[in-house]
Amino acid sequence: MSPDSLAADDRIVRAHIADAEAAPLLIEVTRGDMVESVHRGIVSVVNADGKDVLALGDVNRPTYPRSAIKPLQTLPVIESGAADAFNLSDAEIALCCASHAGEPIHTEKVVPWLGRLGLSVDDLECGPQLPYSQSAAHALIKAGTEPTRAHNNCSGKHSGMLTTAVHLGEPTKGYTGADHPVQTRLIELIGEMGEMDLSQTARGVDGCGIPVFGAPLRGIAYAMARFAAPDKLGAERAAACRRIAKACAANPLMLSGTGSFNSVVLAETGETCLLKGGAEGYYTASIPAKGYGVAIKIDDGAGRASQAAVLAVLVHLGVIDAVQKSRIEAACSQEVRNWAGRLVGVIRPTPAF
Amino acid sequence: MSPDSLAADDRIVRAHIADAEAAPLLIEVTRGDMVESVHRGIVSVVNADGKDVLALGDVNRPTYPRSAIKPLQTLPVIESGAADAFNLSDAEIALCCASHAGEPIHTEKVVPWLGRLGLSVDDLECGPQLPYSQSAAHALIKAGTEPTRAHNNCSGKHSGMLTTAVHLGEPTKGYTGADHPVQTRLIELIGEMGEMDLSQTARGVDGCGIPVFGAPLRGIAYAMARFAAPDKLGAERAAACRRIAKACAANPLMLSGTGSFNSVVLAETGETCLLKGGAEGYYTASIPAKGYGVAIKIDDGAGRASQAAVLAVLVHLGVIDAVQKSRIEAACSQEVRNWAGRLVGVIRPTPAF
Repeated sequence: MSPDSLAADDRIVRAHIADAEAAPLLIEVTRGDMVESVHRGIVSVVNADGKDVLALGDVNRPTYPRSAIKPLQTLPVIESGAADAFNLSDAEIALCCASHAGEPIHTEKVVPWLGRLGLSVDDLECGPQLPYSQSAAHALIKAGTEPTRAHNNCSGKHSGMLTTAVHLGEPTKGYTGADHPVQTRLIELIGEMGEMDLSQTARGVDGCGIPVFGAPLRGIAYAMARFAAPDKLGAERAAACRRIAKACAANPLMLSGTGSFNSVVLAETGETCLLKGGAEGYYTASIPAKGYGVAIKIDDGAGRASQAAVLAVLVHLGVIDAVQKSRIEAACSQEVRNWAGRLVGVIRPTPAF
Repeated sequence: MSPDSLAADDRIVRAHIADAEAAPLLIEVTRGDMVESVHRGIVSVVNADGKDVLALGDVNRPTYPRSAIKPLQTLPVIESGAADAFNLSDAEIALCCASHAGEPIHTEKVVPWLGRLGLSVDDLECGPQLPYSQSAAHALIKAGTEPTRAHNNCSGKHSGMLTTAVHLGEPTKGYTGADHPVQTRLIELIGEMGEMDLSQTARGVDGCGIPVFGAPLRGIAYAMARFAAPDKLGAERAAACRRIAKACAANPLMLSGTGSFNSVVLAETGETCLLKGGAEGYYTASIPAKGYGVAIKIDDGAGRASQAAVLAVLVHLGVIDAVQKSRIEAACSQEVRNWAGRLVGVIRPTPAF
């Protein structure tokens, strides 16, 4: 087959993935006697001095970190003074960092918070979304009610962006635009945190409408390490990092939702580790106790693999012990079960770890 | 990390995937300026003489063909005389080959069919499943009704298995067991069709409870080629292959569901091509007009990639023309859109094709 025969129009440079060596096999999915499917990906763990602790695959490859960097994206809410000006609670700060499941515990916080800003759900520029939470979704369907923008998993992050914009006297309309100060400030901040020049990297649009930017995986891990051990970042930023981490540790359900992997692990790790998933197989973690940052990108974008991979990394690093691992696996199965509930396989790390 | 530190218990031989060279990149998912995720996999197209038409990656690798071989699994329903004994309609024969969406058009056929066998939904050994069809699922949720085993996407295949068992005087209870004649007959038949010795290959359990078996991808493609061009298989089997293919061509909605990729493509290809998807990124096609069989397995199990890959293969082979491709893409978008509906990327074949 020639490349011309198939969708050869407007091909984008894919050199960073297609021409590179295949990323290592990280996760395998078994069924009966055989490995049925496998997931490749790249893993970077670095310390706050920028030294590699673990590097699997080409960790300098550009990636879109998606929602996995929401804790970093919350820094301006604190540093601008917006959080104090609007008396944000710890739960609201945690919601800024959330990809929440659209449960009532989430939406009931977002709506009055927007009210305190003099805004409403209509000012959110993320689209409406049926909740990730099955029970919340079914409740809406039963009631014949359409989901709103408050149900969008990113509505907390957007409320945080609006809080900052209102506090700084910036326009609220168009706050998701690539040229809006809310967004340019964020890209500059994340570049600073990871000591990366993001000015010329790839750009795209996220599921919730904000700009995404290409960043080397290792740079994201380094940014998370500095978030975990922020002493050298100056007193103000260090305090903001610690405040966000504490707010998330105290509100694990706000970050994701009831029974979800991200929330279950956060409830186990508390202030030891802040981990956050993102779309297309991304995970980050910041580990204050060790001063480490973690970033993981699964090549194929599978969430089942990014969860299993971050769990394997946290076990390897000693952040999660055997008892905690068992509890996490009991709550969020790494098993493959069929429609009748029979155990037919497992999702597990390869020896690459 | 040592292998011992992470889930090193009871490791299964994974040599066929992990130790092999990485499969080729087949599908890429873009977002803005960059390829965000990629899918690797293997593709085999062979003719009914067993000659390779296209081979991407290690096509001799064992795979679980899952639901992608349901047209082959329907052969005993015809060959045993069960279909005629119970006056199965073409729609019911198509349902034997289906991974249906659990719409009323499907369940309303399954329930009376079981009645004609003197059986009921309780005799199906697949578990209950919320329909794949969003509208069917929402209708059940709104009504506060639990899904039944008839809603399981495999209920047509199971009804076909029960039809054969009843006709041949075999026990109906336990028909999904690995030692039941319904299942041993199927594995032998598929081995014959692909000229494969399946007696010692990997075994597992499918989502619907029946046994699955490891089979080289190329052998599955060859079985589908012989299904497409069955002249050398004897008059009875040839007639059965053609009857199944015609029944499916006449009932594209029975195979999958309203608006689904598999049904949309079948409606375009008619008797030119019978394609069928399976779990964990599998697709097969049998193409009578050319005497070709196709088998595709995406390494990571992603359905978005197996759909895009089979479409690319059918376009390459000239089975789907540009106008048909446009209609298929209009009905089943290969675009990535965000929650607000904005186009943010595409899913497309790499130059590997």
